[in-house]
Amino acid sequence: MKIAVIGAGAMGSIYGGRLSQHNEVYLIDTNPAVIEAVNSKGLILEENGEDKIFHPKAVASTESLEPVDLIILFVKALYSRAALESNKNLIDSHTYLLTLQNGSGHEDILSGFAKPERIIIGTTEDNGAFLAPGHIRHGGKGNTNVGMLVKDSESFLPKLKEAFDCCGFNVRIHENIQQLIWNKLFVNVALSAVTGVLKCEIGFITENENAFTLSKKLLHEAVTVAHALNLKADEDELLDEIKEVAKNSPHGVTSISADMRAGRKTEVDTISGSVVRAAAKCGVSVPCHEFIVNLIHAMENMKS
Amino acid sequence: MKIAVIGAGAMGSIYGGRLSQHNEVYLIDTNPAVIEAVNSKGLILEENGEDKIFHPKAVASTESLEPVDLIILFVKALYSRAALESNKNLIDSHTYLLTLQNGSGHEDILSGFAKPERIIIGTTEDNGAFLAPGHIRHGGKGNTNVGMLVKDSESFLPKLKEAFDCCGFNVRIHENIQQLIWNKLFVNVALSAVTGVLKCEIGFITENENAFTLSKKLLHEAVTVAHALNLKADEDELLDEIKEVAKNSPHGVTSISADMRAGRKTEVDTISGSVVRAAAKCGVSVPCHEFIVNLIHAMENMKS
Repeated sequence: MKIAVIGAGAMGSIYGGRLSQHNEVYLIDTNPAVIEAVNSKGLILEENGEDKIFHPKAVASTESLEPVDLIILFVKALYSRAALESNKNLIDSHTYLLTLQNGSGHEDILSGFAKPERIIIGTTEDNGAFLAPGHIRHGGKGNTNVGMLVKDSESFLPKLKEAFDCCGFNVRIHENIQQLIWNKLFVNVALSAVTGVLKCEIGFITENENAFTLSKKLLHEAVTVAHALNLKADEDELLDEIKEVAKNSPHGVTSISADMRAGRKTEVDTISGSVVRAAAKCGVSVPCHEFIVNLIHAMENMKS
Repeated sequence: MKIAVIGAGAMGSIYGGRLSQHNEVYLIDTNPAVIEAVNSKGLILEENGEDKIFHPKAVASTESLEPVDLIILFVKALYSRAALESNKNLIDSHTYLLTLQNGSGHEDILSGFAKPERIIIGTTEDNGAFLAPGHIRHGGKGNTNVGMLVKDSESFLPKLKEAFDCCGFNVRIHENIQQLIWNKLFVNVALSAVTGVLKCEIGFITENENAFTLSKKLLHEAVTVAHALNLKADEDELLDEIKEVAKNSPHGVTSISADMRAGRKTEVDTISGSVVRAAAKCGVSVPCHEFIVNLIHAMENMKS
């Protein structure tokens, strides 16, 4: 399969590297240091303490390339539209677009570049860390969950599973992928933006009654939206899950909190913001989500 | 008139000092340096660049004192209940309690210590700054607006006006004092908590679209509550007023923002929190106010 991975951060590199074993893979990134490192020394993935070298072709510009069979989008979600726009010539009417990005609602952006039956959404349970340009630690491994919002009319997902699994992934095809994405989203919306505003670690949320109240309000709104979308969500179970995450990772830092601390733009629009957009579609009121999205953006715009 | 002023900050000192000219005034504070300074050198009020010395009696404990005719409460509102509790022996069935504190809803606490017909609420347009113990700058002067929530059955307010006005104040008695308090509250709830969370100056609110959206949401909720309480509130006019304040005092720092920056407890419960309590009484939903009150408290509780 001819595959383009856009975004050579930790996750993009893990997928681009491993998939290059049995596919023709282009790893696309705007960072010249990454392109240079991968093309000269190969892409090094540290797995279980051992370095493995892979050879995807790293490129900064895809102008000279032909359309591919599959694009996997791994840029930070706030750059999704710009990244697809810059690499538009990789997409023709047969190209599938896959997002495994954090948050939900990515299909809204992808649908500007492909028909619904060419859009695959999902989640990854793998994780990784960027060590240096071209050098990534592949941490925990898990399933790659994928699905489509319309019928997989050309039976592409089984082919994708075959191509991925023979490279060491474990793809699971889901009939109701939106449910799976929301299952992951609930804990995310309850913890990410609040820890971002407070610039705190995850543990503070359950230690502090006022902070926990904020998370509970956000969870409640997200559950209400999920029910309106005919998705399953048990608020009490999800609350227990949140407590469990805080208990197991008290010093964990969410991506929004890390970005706020570093003064970077955050992914709040694809996490809390995706709940606001979903709520608008089904006519549910989510004042706390709207408030915290505005608040995070106000904080992003501050000079300090 | 026998008057006790509880809280010898800038405002308490201005009222206590000036009123001591023609009344028997006790100035009560927990700070020994203030007591010592006032009793040894007198209370110095700098007015129009000139120092004037007044001689209220400053005391830390009121245990040996008899009940007074009037108590003026000028502590930070979060200490109101504790301050009245400690000075309970100054109150008998004839004592009037007056609050000119920032925010609204102070009558809820005062009503634990006196009957409704003995409670006077209001606002002051004077302002001042604490220079040193016993030394206060009396800045702008304006009206002292007072009123009662029930009938002034013993015609006390005209007597209060006489006692205050002959000491240089300008008391205005209002039939609908709650309207006046809310007129001042709207701008306060739109600006204070948001600048507190963002730890920013007032000017940022109108410069930044996201921050301004937060203020607009809060104003909208407060206006809705005011209407439910049969108070007048023109949302567009109030929005113009907020813009005007931000334009005229871009580097202004609200009390909540100052407290957040200094790591102190804030008065959010008597500003935004008073809208939450009023909303509960009239059955209006104020999710943004509830959210920001919790958020301010969560931030107050952080170690950093």
